[in-house]
Amino acid sequence: MQTPLKIAVVGSGLVGSLLAIYLKKAGHTVHVYDRSPDIRQINFSGRSINLAMSNRGWKALDAVGVGDAVREIAIPMDKRAIHLVDKLNFQNYGQEGESIYSISRGTLNRKMIDLAEQAGAEFFFEQKIWDVTLNDATLHIGDTERGEWEEKKFDMVFGADGAFSRIRHRMQRQSMFNYSQEFLNMGYKELNIPANSDATHKLDKYSFHIWPRGEYMLIALPNLDGSFTCTLFMPFEGENSFASLTDRKSVEEFFEKNFPDSIEVIPKLAEDFFKNPTSTLVTMKCFPWTYEDKIALIGDACHAIVPFYGQGMNAGFEDITVLNEMIEKYGDDWKKVFSEYQISRKPNADAIAELSYRNFMEMSTKTADEKFLLQKKIEKAFSDKHPDRWIPLYSRVTFSDRPYTEALAIGDFQNAIMDEILKLDNIENTWHTPEIENKILELLNQ
Amino acid sequence: MQTPLKIAVVGSGLVGSLLAIYLKKAGHTVHVYDRSPDIRQINFSGRSINLAMSNRGWKALDAVGVGDAVREIAIPMDKRAIHLVDKLNFQNYGQEGESIYSISRGTLNRKMIDLAEQAGAEFFFEQKIWDVTLNDATLHIGDTERGEWEEKKFDMVFGADGAFSRIRHRMQRQSMFNYSQEFLNMGYKELNIPANSDATHKLDKYSFHIWPRGEYMLIALPNLDGSFTCTLFMPFEGENSFASLTDRKSVEEFFEKNFPDSIEVIPKLAEDFFKNPTSTLVTMKCFPWTYEDKIALIGDACHAIVPFYGQGMNAGFEDITVLNEMIEKYGDDWKKVFSEYQISRKPNADAIAELSYRNFMEMSTKTADEKFLLQKKIEKAFSDKHPDRWIPLYSRVTFSDRPYTEALAIGDFQNAIMDEILKLDNIENTWHTPEIENKILELLNQ
Repeated sequence: MQTPLKIAVVGSGLVGSLLAIYLKKAGHTVHVYDRSPDIRQINFSGRSINLAMSNRGWKALDAVGVGDAVREIAIPMDKRAIHLVDKLNFQNYGQEGESIYSISRGTLNRKMIDLAEQAGAEFFFEQKIWDVTLNDATLHIGDTERGEWEEKKFDMVFGADGAFSRIRHRMQRQSMFNYSQEFLNMGYKELNIPANSDATHKLDKYSFHIWPRGEYMLIALPNLDGSFTCTLFMPFEGENSFASLTDRKSVEEFFEKNFPDSIEVIPKLAEDFFKNPTSTLVTMKCFPWTYEDKIALIGDACHAIVPFYGQGMNAGFEDITVLNEMIEKYGDDWKKVFSEYQISRKPNADAIAELSYRNFMEMSTKTADEKFLLQKKIEKAFSDKHPDRWIPLYSRVTFSDRPYTEALAIGDFQNAIMDEILKLDNIENTWHTPEIENKILELLNQ
Repeated sequence: MQTPLKIAVVGSGLVGSLLAIYLKKAGHTVHVYDRSPDIRQINFSGRSINLAMSNRGWKALDAVGVGDAVREIAIPMDKRAIHLVDKLNFQNYGQEGESIYSISRGTLNRKMIDLAEQAGAEFFFEQKIWDVTLNDATLHIGDTERGEWEEKKFDMVFGADGAFSRIRHRMQRQSMFNYSQEFLNMGYKELNIPANSDATHKLDKYSFHIWPRGEYMLIALPNLDGSFTCTLFMPFEGENSFASLTDRKSVEEFFEKNFPDSIEVIPKLAEDFFKNPTSTLVTMKCFPWTYEDKIALIGDACHAIVPFYGQGMNAGFEDITVLNEMIEKYGDDWKKVFSEYQISRKPNADAIAELSYRNFMEMSTKTADEKFLLQKKIEKAFSDKHPDRWIPLYSRVTFSDRPYTEALAIGDFQNAIMDEILKLDNIENTWHTPEIENKILELLNQ
């Protein structure tokens, strides 16, 4: 058991709330600060993408006893529903019984704060943190950046305050702090498919719906109330872009032409399109993540990624799992806890950033490509027969808790093998034969 | 001729001062701000590396009529003097008559401020800029970050305030601003070789001296007063590192063992070693560099690079050359001037960052390598005979004003050719034959 400390968590998002539960259950006093109002008392919408909870997320929730409470608000999706312009394909995510889980961000965040309060963490909303003194874990809080500030001293501060973290902002001003932020030339916009009048879903409820169109795509994830949260990903500039869709007519024509089967299920298309903001997508990397035994960054505050692998929250929750492992291993030696935590997590954060960046291509282009679908079939057949020899990349990332670094490296190796296999003559017809199976085994053993 | 504006330049370093001269000569009112005291009235030393002025730097100075004033404080270096543990080699930088020029940073900076004042620019020292309002070019100035600030409004603000620019700091807080800073695991420390009693130089005056030792190296560049400014580059941690040199004895033993011929010329070795700070090396990239027609970054403020190609100042001065070209082309259309300036310069800044990063290997390892020296001989012989077919990479960067992007791309192509050539049997003896010359021509024409 650790010596009880007074700990501040900055940020009451998903990672901040879950971390508060862990720290509280470890016996610490936990104060959670957020610059925004209590999300339980306001409407939260217009710029979110539904979450896809998978293995790493559930592991972190279950280990602290809140998994089942979250399952109540989650909908399993065992497959992709791929909406081509003229047909609909389905593609299973994993083995029988394996699913990712659609959860509305707002609903989950409210639940997590409730659970953290029940655990005994105290929340302070509309408290703007402008700065932190690193060497004595003091927060500087005030209404405006240039106005009066109040100081609050803690034993330790966690920065769970997201991609634009103020805690990290102070750390960035140290020497030897490596940092990068890179925006995609693509944004996203939330749209909505409402429920039927009997509260059933207008599309298959248990699918992650994708309309892959190359440079842009539309996705839809189910909500408990029968609706779907849709997200349109599209370049900011160019032929098919947010800049090119300037009025009601151009938006409606664009959807009619490119997403014809979406038209009847998105009744308030143009209204939502112009009401909801266009949001940006950023990859942020930094190092170090901690300062002595005083300050630690966690979640998006130290590794913000693009959403195309559905791993942002899962990776943040896994930070907590690893931090907790280090706490169990090193007890009160917080310097060691922090140092081992960041050394363990940094390469994995870089790996999932890379995988997430690459996965836009897979979702938006490859899921519409016959060759890619053939590759998936071959991998699935081989993996069913040799489950110990071939865990597909998606499964390794989503349905396992093996390191992301391993998934990236083995995924690249598997892709090189599949490149060879797909080059073989007449592979369209021979893919299920023992010859191909043996060829894959041979390449695996090379 | 442009409409006269009131322009602030933040930063009175080399780039800020030269920019002030250009803007003043174009008819503008120019106020230069610096947070530090006037460098002409203080000692400036202990953490600088001597500058190596080359073609791009001279071009920018000459175009505004101040080249000759700077030549008075410059010493030509036409070769590298390579101090191996047991012998001394020389390697010419370019053709007969081609040199780079050693200039002390402090001396040059003082001269540049004098020249800018003579041109009519006004300097304001010990004025700390904490923030800038981007859309109306207003500077926020005060003694401390949290204290009272005074506002000064201009028509336009240039951020020439270096790698840790406050002007950029504000731009970074915009959405869609790409940014990275990456520190090397290596630092540097200034040392000094004093002049002989008759004010002559203790080592060859017209050489850039290098003691290449793989993971670390020592360099020395001549000063006008007979001294040399030395710089030790070394990892922060590890076997041969700043962390391992903790006392007088370990420093002296390290130099005796690894730089034996330096011992007698660096009399105050241990004293300077512990007096002077260990400085860091950072590569910083960002984009965009400008905001509307109000704000522009220039020099290290938008592209800080490591010093191993001697191009930091040269690249900053070339920014001014390109900015001036755009001014001559687009006149009062400052939006266009800024936009074309950043589009033209950004890829070149990235290219020289890459070349500079790579050049540590060349300086510290390859200059001590027989194969590398053979490669340089082959390139030189071929280039002498076919000057239109082969400009060596170093010459393209240093003695031309062709784009850095071109130097990087052609340099990679040339290296691929030389890799082939160096693989040939008995190349040590055949390198000067017509067969090899023809083989290079053939590879060039592939």
